[in-house]
Amino acid sequence: MLIVKKFGGSSVADKEKIYHVAQRCIEDYQKGNEVVVVLSAMGKTTDKLIELAKEMAPNPSKRELDMLLATGEQTSVACMAMAMGALGVPCVSLNAFQVAMHTTSTYGSARFKRIDSQRIRHELDSKKIVIVTGFQGMNKYDDVTTLGRGGSDTTAVALAAALKADACEIYTDVEGIYTGDPRVVPNAKKLKEITYDEMLELATLGAKVLHNRSVEVAKKYGVQLVVRSSLNTAEGTIVKEEVDVESMLISGVAVDKNTARIAVIGVKDVPGTAFKIFNLLGKHNINVDIIIQSIGREGTKDISFTVARDDVSEVIALLEENKSRITAQRIEKDETVAKVSVVGAGMQSNPGVAAKMFEAIYNAGINIRMIATSEIRVTVLLDEADADNAMRAVHDRFIEY
Amino acid sequence: MLIVKKFGGSSVADKEKIYHVAQRCIEDYQKGNEVVVVLSAMGKTTDKLIELAKEMAPNPSKRELDMLLATGEQTSVACMAMAMGALGVPCVSLNAFQVAMHTTSTYGSARFKRIDSQRIRHELDSKKIVIVTGFQGMNKYDDVTTLGRGGSDTTAVALAAALKADACEIYTDVEGIYTGDPRVVPNAKKLKEITYDEMLELATLGAKVLHNRSVEVAKKYGVQLVVRSSLNTAEGTIVKEEVDVESMLISGVAVDKNTARIAVIGVKDVPGTAFKIFNLLGKHNINVDIIIQSIGREGTKDISFTVARDDVSEVIALLEENKSRITAQRIEKDETVAKVSVVGAGMQSNPGVAAKMFEAIYNAGINIRMIATSEIRVTVLLDEADADNAMRAVHDRFIEY
Repeated sequence: MLIVKKFGGSSVADKEKIYHVAQRCIEDYQKGNEVVVVLSAMGKTTDKLIELAKEMAPNPSKRELDMLLATGEQTSVACMAMAMGALGVPCVSLNAFQVAMHTTSTYGSARFKRIDSQRIRHELDSKKIVIVTGFQGMNKYDDVTTLGRGGSDTTAVALAAALKADACEIYTDVEGIYTGDPRVVPNAKKLKEITYDEMLELATLGAKVLHNRSVEVAKKYGVQLVVRSSLNTAEGTIVKEEVDVESMLISGVAVDKNTARIAVIGVKDVPGTAFKIFNLLGKHNINVDIIIQSIGREGTKDISFTVARDDVSEVIALLEENKSRITAQRIEKDETVAKVSVVGAGMQSNPGVAAKMFEAIYNAGINIRMIATSEIRVTVLLDEADADNAMRAVHDRFIEY
Repeated sequence: MLIVKKFGGSSVADKEKIYHVAQRCIEDYQKGNEVVVVLSAMGKTTDKLIELAKEMAPNPSKRELDMLLATGEQTSVACMAMAMGALGVPCVSLNAFQVAMHTTSTYGSARFKRIDSQRIRHELDSKKIVIVTGFQGMNKYDDVTTLGRGGSDTTAVALAAALKADACEIYTDVEGIYTGDPRVVPNAKKLKEITYDEMLELATLGAKVLHNRSVEVAKKYGVQLVVRSSLNTAEGTIVKEEVDVESMLISGVAVDKNTARIAVIGVKDVPGTAFKIFNLLGKHNINVDIIIQSIGREGTKDISFTVARDDVSEVIALLEENKSRITAQRIEKDETVAKVSVVGAGMQSNPGVAAKMFEAIYNAGINIRMIATSEIRVTVLLDEADADNAMRAVHDRFIEY
């Protein structure tokens, strides 16, 4: 069996942890499996490198930032290979150039285009454990790229697809995917299985266990994932195309506090206004989430939407600059909001999920500010201060114990 | 003019120093020159990475050690590019893979085989300052190699040769090459020029300003070097094929305390004994320096030689193992010795240099243990405790003020 195993930065933060991971990989190897290990940078290395970059230049070149950040994973794969070597197991570390992991050219958020499997195949054939740098790639200019935060998950899934691996295991510091954040909802339950689509909604909504892009790639290439703990051998959560129809109505409740509401007040009620606003933001790579358009006074309307908090100042600046073109009377922002969502493939065939959710929130005495829905998700925007209570109320309403 | 400028680790140890180096490079660039900058790892980074490796494994894989060490220079070139970028100058950092700096396969002490100039040429044509990682290369397996301590000098010279640069400047924390170590000989003089051969003898003998291999490469490809200070704009020392015939008789006095004397006592006085001993050491990559053979008692002879102190325990073990084969009665070592040498191309046509040197040492009341000479060098072995005094005495005798 060919197994791709991915370990995050906290799992390889120091010598002891590296040896622990090495042992786990060696167990699989000694059972006769082919093992490919994908690693993130050790501990807080990436944060420290970003600090170093900001020290060097207030606004460092994105190309050079990727060049710098890539040293983090190169350090961790070399250390892991030293550890496995000391344990007497043949192994080799490879960086993105050595594998040849080709990506698009966008520094800081590159996407895989093609991964050569030849070098890894050769090393596996030589009976070595292969240890690959996560998070990084090379573009058509032979420059170093990175995939963005959490990108090592995507590396693991893309490698599993390229190598036609039999298993892709994502190790983390929790035991799997839960129906809610266990820190907020003490009785959250671990899911046995979840679909790619549900996982995508949860990842987007801030569940933070799996990198969103990794789930997209897994879905596209049909790579079945297991999310499990690097600390124990508990069964994790399987992420796959379809799950048992008898499974729960909803698979999880997520909270996302990294959100802000922007309101564009009093724009002319003529065609094309919304297009102008969102085209402007799209050109600047700003992701917009919930959008609400409401009728204002005297032939005007108000357009509200949510964006990530990091983007707020840029969004406000852009809108103010273009205020007359988009015919806005006033721009407002509110950074004290949060999103609570229920996600579940089951809700497609079960009407009334939204109503049940609103009821739970109403019973908790919490006011809903905006609402958005997809086929497998219902999201409400509410005051950040109410978010955790709302999450517990919704979780209690849907998850059976 | 195409200028290759090399800065060592202490010249790029922190933000302030990096900006200082950036400014110096930008000055040349703004005068219309093409500028290639070669950097070592920042400050003590390489030492720290070696410590990390030793923490990971008592005897880390050499391949993986090179993989780890190479992150040091990648960090410094990225930081430098960020600094130059912040100063508004177009620039790009390149690692050994991106340039394609092909080396032999020996990890830890690789040698350049071929350097592609295409990528650097392309970046220079785009009016960028090109910042290249020193010390590292890639071998035929696409694996990372390093050149050994001080290897960044060699990178600079090899790049200058490959790019047919008009100048190759090695920046260091001293102002050039001196007739003696200024810490030991307070009135040591800075040399205006020195030949490759003299520099090679001085580098080998512990002058430590230039990496030996870099001088060999410079000589082979006729790359004229300038050694100068990164802290001021004083004229440095030019290293080239031939210097002014009017130059000083000797160019410098060097002390090397990293030496030990090994004596193989009472070997049979038959042909082939010396061959057996030095063939054995050669096979184990041990460099032997001064060799003396003297007649012993009753048809035996004694063979003495010097090696670096790091090699002593290995040498003793090898000789003891093969004691009967090399017909030795006893093996002795002495680690309290040092070498003092005078070097000068001028001595070829000036007999009596050795006599003058011995006289100076005799006058200082110091005993000479062994003597070795080459065409442009006279070396004596003496007690380590006498080394500095001997150096001052010899320096005073030869260097005019």
